[in-house]
Amino acid sequence: MVDLVLDLDTGIDDAIALSIAAKDKGINLLGVTCTYGNVTVEESAYNTLSLLSLLHREDVPVYIGRNRSLLSSSPYTPREAGRKIHGKYGSGDIKLKESPRKPEPISAKAFLTSLMKEREDITIVTTGPMTNLASILIDEPSLSKWKGKIVFMGGALTVRGNVNHFAEANIYKDPESAKTVLESGLDITMIGLDVTERTRLYRKDAEKWKEKGSELGLTLGSLLDYYLDNTLGMDETYVHDPSAVITVLHPEYFTFLPFPLTVETEGIDRGRVIIDDKRLLSRKGEIKVALDVNRRLLEGFLADIEKYL
Amino acid sequence: MVDLVLDLDTGIDDAIALSIAAKDKGINLLGVTCTYGNVTVEESAYNTLSLLSLLHREDVPVYIGRNRSLLSSSPYTPREAGRKIHGKYGSGDIKLKESPRKPEPISAKAFLTSLMKEREDITIVTTGPMTNLASILIDEPSLSKWKGKIVFMGGALTVRGNVNHFAEANIYKDPESAKTVLESGLDITMIGLDVTERTRLYRKDAEKWKEKGSELGLTLGSLLDYYLDNTLGMDETYVHDPSAVITVLHPEYFTFLPFPLTVETEGIDRGRVIIDDKRLLSRKGEIKVALDVNRRLLEGFLADIEKYL
Repeated sequence: MVDLVLDLDTGIDDAIALSIAAKDKGINLLGVTCTYGNVTVEESAYNTLSLLSLLHREDVPVYIGRNRSLLSSSPYTPREAGRKIHGKYGSGDIKLKESPRKPEPISAKAFLTSLMKEREDITIVTTGPMTNLASILIDEPSLSKWKGKIVFMGGALTVRGNVNHFAEANIYKDPESAKTVLESGLDITMIGLDVTERTRLYRKDAEKWKEKGSELGLTLGSLLDYYLDNTLGMDETYVHDPSAVITVLHPEYFTFLPFPLTVETEGIDRGRVIIDDKRLLSRKGEIKVALDVNRRLLEGFLADIEKYL
Repeated sequence: MVDLVLDLDTGIDDAIALSIAAKDKGINLLGVTCTYGNVTVEESAYNTLSLLSLLHREDVPVYIGRNRSLLSSSPYTPREAGRKIHGKYGSGDIKLKESPRKPEPISAKAFLTSLMKEREDITIVTTGPMTNLASILIDEPSLSKWKGKIVFMGGALTVRGNVNHFAEANIYKDPESAKTVLESGLDITMIGLDVTERTRLYRKDAEKWKEKGSELGLTLGSLLDYYLDNTLGMDETYVHDPSAVITVLHPEYFTFLPFPLTVETEGIDRGRVIIDDKRLLSRKGEIKVALDVNRRLLEGFLADIEKYL
C-alpha cells in the first residue's frame, strides 16, 4: 500500500489518474494538492472536489496551490489550445456538479511542507507544472534531503515535445520550477512523453465506462469521449497522467534508466528536459527516467478501470 | 572475429579508432572507405593510408568516397572549428608522412555495394557523415534488406548536440543521408554523444603512447596531445569514434534500448536525431541506441591500446 499525494491540474487525463489513485487497493490517497495548467488552480480544485464526491472519497482533503509559475506575476489561465483539449472548465463539454465540500483552509504548500517534514514514506505524483513542489524546496532547503519519492508526468527526452519540438506542456509552463525539482537530488521518477505516447486509451474504454450507468461511469466516459475527439482526433488517445499513477503501482511495466536531468530555461528550447552534462560523469542526482513501457500490460490495466465505476 | 569495414573522415579520434580496428585480434579489417567531415575526403584518404602504413597494415585497401553531402553541389571543406579540433590536415600539429600506396581505383561506393551484395556477415562502422552508405541505399533499393550490421558514431538523443543544442556534428553535416540510413530498417547501432561524452581519454594515455618510442606510438601520442589541447581544454577528452569500434568488440560495455529513429531536416533543429513518432507504436525499424556505458570497462580497454604500439 503506497501512501500517496497527488498534485493535479485537473483536466481530463488528471481525472482518470485521480480515479485510479482514489479507487485502487494499492494506494492510500492522503490528499490532493491543486496546481494550474490544463485549468486554473481554482478550476482544478473545483473539478477535484467534484470528482472525489463521485468517487465516494469525500474523506480525501483538497488543497489549493500556487496559481502561477515561479517567475509569473499574474495567475495562469490556459491558452486556447489547452482549453480545446480539456474543455472550457477542464471537464470536456460538461460542467461537473459542484461539491458541497470546500478546499481545506491551509495551502497546498503548507500541507505538503508539514507532511514532508513529518513523513518520508510517501510518494508525491505531479501531473502539471511543478510549482508547488519547487516553492517548497526553495523555501525549505532542509527538505532537499527528504527521502520520499516523487513521480512527475512531464518532459520529453527521446521524443519531440508537444508544445514545440523541444518542450512538453507541463515543463514549458514553469521551466524554473521543473529545473529546481529535477536538480534537487530527491528520489524522482520521470514519466514523460517518451512513454505516455507509446500507449493508448480507446473509444471502447469510454463506451464501457458509460455502460456502467453510474454517475461516475457516465462522467468519466463523457470526459474521455471529449478528450478522444480533441487530442489525436481518432478513436484512441495518449495516456499521460494515468501513467504516472500506474507506475507507482506497477513500476515493472516500465523500462527506466538513471540520468542526471536538467531543464533549459533560455532560448528556443526553453522548457526542454535534457541530460545535465555537468553531472554526466559524477552521476550525481540521477533520476529514474521511463524510456519504454510494456503497452500490453499498461493497456490491460486501463481496460480494468471499469471495475471502479 | 568480426569482418569489418570502416568509413572514416580521418581526423584524430578516427586515427585511434582505426588503430584499434587494425590491431585488435577480434577484428578482420576488410577495408577503409573515406568520407569528408573532420577533413576533406582526400585528406581522409591521405591520413588513412599513412596511418595504415605506420600500423603495418598495408594489406588493407582504402577507397575514396563522395566528397560532399547528398544535397550539396560543392566539395565539403571543414569549418574553422573542425580545423581547430583536428588540426590543419586532420593530424594535429604535424603532417603525416605520405604513404607510397594510393587509394584503390574503384570508389568507396562501388566497393561497398559489391561487398554488401556478396556478403551479409560483415559490420560497417561509420565515424563521419553517412553519405557513402546513404548513396548506396538510394541507388540500390534491394540492399534495404541487407542483413549485415551498421554501427555509426553520431547523434545526441538524451544530451545536447555539439554543433548546437540539437545536432551532433556528423549528422549535422548531412542530415538527409543520416535520415536515409536511420529509416532504412537495416540492423543499426547508434553510438552517440549520449555515451561518447561519458568516458575519457587522458593526457597520461598520450604520454604512455609516446613512451613506447615507436613511430606509431609517437604519432598517436602526438595526435592525442593536440586533441586534448583543443577539445575539452583539460587533460582529458571525449571518446567519440573509438567507442564505435569498441562496441563491435564489447557490446556488453554499453546499455542499449531499441528506438525507431529519424533525423530532423528542417528548421532550427536540422540534424537532430529523435524518435520517429510515426513508428513509435509499430516499433518498425528500431535501432539499438547506446544510452549508457560502463566507464571503468571502456577506459580499461583504452588504457590497453599501448600494447598495439
